[in-house]
Amino acid sequence: MGERTEFRRDLGQQLRVDSVRASAAANSGHPTSSMSAADLIAVLIDGHLREDDHLIFSKGHASPLYYAMLKATGRIDDEELLTFRKLGSRLEGHPTPRIPPTDVATGSLGQGLPIAAGVALAGARLDRLPYRTWCLCGDSEMAEGSMWESIQHAGWEGLDNLVAIIDVNRLGQTRETMLGWDTDGYVDRLTAFGWHAIAIDGHDVDAVEAAYAEAERTEGRPTAIVARTKKGKGVKAVEDLPDKHGKPLDEPEAAIEELGGERDLHVELAAAAGGTPHAFPTTETALPTWDLGEEVATRKAYGEALTALGSSRGDVVALDGEVSNSTHSEDFRKAHEDRYFEMFIAEQQLVAAAVGFQVRGWVPFASTFSAFFSRAYDFIRMAAISRADIRLSGSHAGVSIGEDGPSQMALEDLAAFRAIHGSTVLHPSDANQTAALVAAMADTKGISFLRTLRGKTPVRTPADEEVRIGGSRIAHEGDDVAIVACGITVDEAVRAADALADEGVGARVLDCYSVKPIDVEAVRAAAHECGGVITVEDHWPEGGLGDAVLEALAEAEDRPRVTKLAVREMPVSGTPEELLHEAGIDAEAIAAAARALSPLRR
Amino acid sequence: MGERTEFRRDLGQQLRVDSVRASAAANSGHPTSSMSAADLIAVLIDGHLREDDHLIFSKGHASPLYYAMLKATGRIDDEELLTFRKLGSRLEGHPTPRIPPTDVATGSLGQGLPIAAGVALAGARLDRLPYRTWCLCGDSEMAEGSMWESIQHAGWEGLDNLVAIIDVNRLGQTRETMLGWDTDGYVDRLTAFGWHAIAIDGHDVDAVEAAYAEAERTEGRPTAIVARTKKGKGVKAVEDLPDKHGKPLDEPEAAIEELGGERDLHVELAAAAGGTPHAFPTTETALPTWDLGEEVATRKAYGEALTALGSSRGDVVALDGEVSNSTHSEDFRKAHEDRYFEMFIAEQQLVAAAVGFQVRGWVPFASTFSAFFSRAYDFIRMAAISRADIRLSGSHAGVSIGEDGPSQMALEDLAAFRAIHGSTVLHPSDANQTAALVAAMADTKGISFLRTLRGKTPVRTPADEEVRIGGSRIAHEGDDVAIVACGITVDEAVRAADALADEGVGARVLDCYSVKPIDVEAVRAAAHECGGVITVEDHWPEGGLGDAVLEALAEAEDRPRVTKLAVREMPVSGTPEELLHEAGIDAEAIAAAARALSPLRR
Repeated sequence: MGERTEFRRDLGQQLRVDSVRASAAANSGHPTSSMSAADLIAVLIDGHLREDDHLIFSKGHASPLYYAMLKATGRIDDEELLTFRKLGSRLEGHPTPRIPPTDVATGSLGQGLPIAAGVALAGARLDRLPYRTWCLCGDSEMAEGSMWESIQHAGWEGLDNLVAIIDVNRLGQTRETMLGWDTDGYVDRLTAFGWHAIAIDGHDVDAVEAAYAEAERTEGRPTAIVARTKKGKGVKAVEDLPDKHGKPLDEPEAAIEELGGERDLHVELAAAAGGTPHAFPTTETALPTWDLGEEVATRKAYGEALTALGSSRGDVVALDGEVSNSTHSEDFRKAHEDRYFEMFIAEQQLVAAAVGFQVRGWVPFASTFSAFFSRAYDFIRMAAISRADIRLSGSHAGVSIGEDGPSQMALEDLAAFRAIHGSTVLHPSDANQTAALVAAMADTKGISFLRTLRGKTPVRTPADEEVRIGGSRIAHEGDDVAIVACGITVDEAVRAADALADEGVGARVLDCYSVKPIDVEAVRAAAHECGGVITVEDHWPEGGLGDAVLEALAEAEDRPRVTKLAVREMPVSGTPEELLHEAGIDAEAIAAAARALSPLRR
Repeated sequence: MGERTEFRRDLGQQLRVDSVRASAAANSGHPTSSMSAADLIAVLIDGHLREDDHLIFSKGHASPLYYAMLKATGRIDDEELLTFRKLGSRLEGHPTPRIPPTDVATGSLGQGLPIAAGVALAGARLDRLPYRTWCLCGDSEMAEGSMWESIQHAGWEGLDNLVAIIDVNRLGQTRETMLGWDTDGYVDRLTAFGWHAIAIDGHDVDAVEAAYAEAERTEGRPTAIVARTKKGKGVKAVEDLPDKHGKPLDEPEAAIEELGGERDLHVELAAAAGGTPHAFPTTETALPTWDLGEEVATRKAYGEALTALGSSRGDVVALDGEVSNSTHSEDFRKAHEDRYFEMFIAEQQLVAAAVGFQVRGWVPFASTFSAFFSRAYDFIRMAAISRADIRLSGSHAGVSIGEDGPSQMALEDLAAFRAIHGSTVLHPSDANQTAALVAAMADTKGISFLRTLRGKTPVRTPADEEVRIGGSRIAHEGDDVAIVACGITVDEAVRAADALADEGVGARVLDCYSVKPIDVEAVRAAAHECGGVITVEDHWPEGGLGDAVLEALAEAEDRPRVTKLAVREMPVSGTPEELLHEAGIDAEAIAAAARALSPLRR
């Protein structure tokens, strides 16, 4: 046995021992899922993983192994290792970017590989650098469709800078996986998707070495290393046994002894591949503006504004879920083809790629129909835990899309995005607002979401008026009743206010284009000065604009009656006008609500 | 050319003509995506599709073809065909169950096949009947991971009663698909996943006939027919051309003439395969109850209650996403193994299978960590449009799970589920409530969601007390301040109320175990009788219990100040107690909020 082989075996044992120790100290965690992959990681960090490579643990529950690896590579000391899962520790139950150099949070299975594919795509087509992206995957998570979205996409893109290491330990949380130890089954599938796939014994460090070397040599295709392993490898009390998932070992001391005792081996990562990220040329370009009264769809304004922003800023990139002629990201594609990414109809991979791009410092804007971001909701939730800065633009909001019917109507998106931690939720009513908000999003931290309309709306906001995240505007003056609206309902509210003016009722229309954060001051002022409040939104009643207004008023001095107008019955097909009317969110319904509220309001 | 061949070609042309006509009448729709699959459907309905088979259009945008088929089989007349996409018509932009015999709504791509797999699974293992499930898929939607979840699962289950027809027309909405016309590429992938796959020319009706016959003969595996077709087939102005997606033809009259003019062919479906659905034996079994003060996790109560319900009712089935020992659906699995379905870590397929089961009249309960239902949010949204009756149980709510960290904590689930149309959202605080609500869910229409806790809570609800959807209970009497809580925060609120009582402040704790519908009367009474209101939830501030309470009070006579306590910073790992404290939703924080509110409240 060569010296290096022996060292790597020892290093693997150290990673196991430290996984057992960390889990024992925490009295929780996933040591057995760590032990299966220990040899794979030992060989990786001893000569393959370079300083500027990326490594994502898609099987985030193998966090004990991840932290043991950080110790072996000098990122943390043994004392910190034993703070695992304790309050205040950077070593959370599943990895998060709180502990460098972790790129993203994992722990919801099936997300690491799609994000790794995004990082690799950035490496190949944006940074244009030789760094490699490695991803440790579990076999249980191969059941997640999102894995196959990324396998499909990375295969199609021919990302030879991406290596997936699949830890086939056979045992899931409660039973054997669908494929068990059928490594050939995985190889067949991966090969059919355009990958180079290698089946090995994941505990044979020389075989692992050979596989990594082969992956590094492979050109034109991503490589998957399908490694047959044993869960809990090295400790008889747990090795390859059921019911040993997600719990510390019963007898950690004995296990540590069986593994050869504690070690303090240390490895240096291989030297960085180096290089300077590519920079795209820019030309100072003003944001587009539109004249008052022009009829423009906000989705179209999105496309034009993003295109201008992309001219001024070389770090802005666009992605779309194969609906770029609907979302109007096609404008960006035509102007900046090398910074546009077609993600096809795979919304999870769409969002994951955006997360991967921002890992590398790019400023991604991803677009699809707003309804279809619901497909990636878990990815968006996890992106917030990753402290990712991504911008999402969802078109075709609400019943106002008309004939296509409810499957294409986003009616829960404001609720879903408001409930994402640290999110920004924007729903402009006209083109000038949209352009200003697109520019603001580029400098916004966290998850920012822009909801755009299919149909045209008249420009009401002067091009030189300030539009800001957290802002609002008064679209119609009045102080008898307040109508709070956003998007398509601003138009309807203004029409209602005009009708009410004829009856001598002064309605203030507040355009809350920033739904989160909402303009608390303006909402409270409207409540104080107008008395009764009506909220109107092209959205279900729950979690959207109405709830944001109620929240703004919950602790205010003035808490007037609030009538919430929203979509309450399942919509059908029809014209936009018909459907706004049927839903009770058109000018007629708003005016009627104002009349009903008026005598009661003070 | 045989007579039947000729008839089928004519029938295919009729389906094209009617697709063009319907889209022209609507001035919108997807005629070209219909024309590619017309021959596939012509052969299907002429001799293969039986009266009791199921047919799901996964490519729901081919609705013109679907409705043309309904006309050819006598389900609708020509007059109704031309109401396509008009207000009041049953023929919506994408199919919904409003037009029989449509099982489910489609239109969000990648959902039809997973649901079809659910129907087929019901056929094989629940109904135990010979009906077959056919599913027309688009090639663009093969990019969706959910397709591969179902391909994987159906292959593993060996569902030979399932046939996927993949309409490979090469062109997506804006460009060529990843695989284009590489039908062998699809065949390789499907074969690797355990399917029998047949590549054919989808316009050669004899080849289609042979493929269907082969599918019908195939045993032990599902079959995929990979049909090379042309988008817009039969009309030169659009055939196989880009930029012809999702719009009516410019010259419909000329197109109809080119297609051979209008026809009025009619086909009878093949006779039903017949048979009587299997019925599982039952034994009258009481729901479990627990004594006051017992400490039980509501997730455990879920498992026990569902098991008892399954004994009493043979139509109740359970599914889980490979965490049955966490959600406690394992109790059901052990008692009723033939009605338990392991869906592995594939939450989209998990929900889709539940939808498929209820198509056949079964009463599915699907469980996983509540955080991971976010993975299937689009499926849940679409299930509401399908008017599906499904029950979802999400465990591991909120920061109270402790050490696992934020990736495993559901903190947006109440918001997400409240925003599903017609949904029921339940979050019991103890075991007796849980059991009663599980029983109620079985008879509840629409999407019902039960949120359960990882940790134990004391039983406070007497076993004989009424617990109902839309109900609530007073967990602590008082009329100086109202504390509205649910789940884990009920315990904290009661502790706070005890502390406040010592200070002479009478706090009423309202346990709103039914978050939607919320008990408006009880919330308003609490506001009226107590003045100030505090809401406290283990959830982000947006869209959850607090917003439900604000909504209940929005139009009430008494609208007191409402202080909303919720999780406002990204949680980390720690013990449940530490994390409830850090989040400011423990007894101490609640009592402090009550003290702050008290002097201001009236």
